[in-house]
Amino acid sequence: MTSPAPSPRTEIRRKPQRAHYDAATIAAIVDQALLCHVAFNDAGSVHCLPMACWRDGDYLYLHAANNSRISRALMAGECAVTITHIDGLVLARSAFRHSMNFRSVVLYGSFAAVNPENDKKSAFAAFVDHVSPGRSALVREPDAAELAGTTLLRLPLAEAAAKIRNWGVEDNAGDLDRPVWAGVIPLALQAQPFQPDAACAQTTPPTLPDFIK
Amino acid sequence: MTSPAPSPRTEIRRKPQRAHYDAATIAAIVDQALLCHVAFNDAGSVHCLPMACWRDGDYLYLHAANNSRISRALMAGECAVTITHIDGLVLARSAFRHSMNFRSVVLYGSFAAVNPENDKKSAFAAFVDHVSPGRSALVREPDAAELAGTTLLRLPLAEAAAKIRNWGVEDNAGDLDRPVWAGVIPLALQAQPFQPDAACAQTTPPTLPDFIK
Repeated sequence: MTSPAPSPRTEIRRKPQRAHYDAATIAAIVDQALLCHVAFNDAGSVHCLPMACWRDGDYLYLHAANNSRISRALMAGECAVTITHIDGLVLARSAFRHSMNFRSVVLYGSFAAVNPENDKKSAFAAFVDHVSPGRSALVREPDAAELAGTTLLRLPLAEAAAKIRNWGVEDNAGDLDRPVWAGVIPLALQAQPFQPDAACAQTTPPTLPDFIK
Repeated sequence: MTSPAPSPRTEIRRKPQRAHYDAATIAAIVDQALLCHVAFNDAGSVHCLPMACWRDGDYLYLHAANNSRISRALMAGECAVTITHIDGLVLARSAFRHSMNFRSVVLYGSFAAVNPENDKKSAFAAFVDHVSPGRSALVREPDAAELAGTTLLRLPLAEAAAKIRNWGVEDNAGDLDRPVWAGVIPLALQAQPFQPDAACAQTTPPTLPDFIK
């Protein structure tokens, strides 16, 4: 049995066969994100900004400078947050059957600030470990001024919808004999040769999360 | 001399040293995008959806099914469209100096439908060639029903701001002797081994755009 959409605005009506609403699917997509796109209204206009993000439990976390426009706007109203991974180009024999393989999550709701200093410290440690597992134990942890100057925000993952396309080409039968290559070109975010800082004497390379190939 | 922000809402106030407003920088970032995130208001809520996109001249193009919620909403009001490329992880010696290298563009404005059939045909050919250069000449072109069932939308690139971070770590002097690897891990979208369709007899592989490594 599949999970139902948690609200009318999360219900995927276009191509509902691609929709998923269960928490495990949503968490798995969020866990592979380095950034999300945050849509919100401010000063009479809609905005869409990329923000670094990470998950801890049932929340998506972001951080922003204190009193920045985005931290004020996100605490003042509702937003939509979207994460998208491009997994492949689907090259069909007709122009209109081309597609992309992807996994996306759209979240709706309101961000709230997390204030206790210990909660902020552990959330930022989780952020560093999201980018490089184990790294929070190696770097200097935030001092009181750094923590106090940064707003930590979190959004529940409750009102969420995922959309996934992860299959091959779907050409019309009449196009199958067209003499052109057809299939999927998988795409992945891959690390390139590391570029150590000039002043870096430490040669033990950092670990990478498993979603970076 | 640098270009000024084209409007108050495009002006980047946080870290303005990362801001660029010139058309060439904006076009170069848009040209490397397979998708954008589109933020708009509909039915009392803000939304943010990933959409495939491509540039032709001074416009960003999208397509959507006729009478879909998004095509109606995008023609009814203003939106913000954001493209973000993640170029690297910046691993510093302190938690708070971690960063990411990226290039992003935010566009503001209103989409308008492109209706003449010939204009739609050439725009969709440009879309196919964006994903695989030269491919539009090899695949079956859209027929009248496919063209008629799809809304082609375009947004001027005029009201746009780019933000770029493309440099190394910026640690505090007091942290430089910390014994931890510091530097940049470049990231790139890379093609994985091609997966031809089972019924594909053609062995000449497709070309890839130069932004896919």
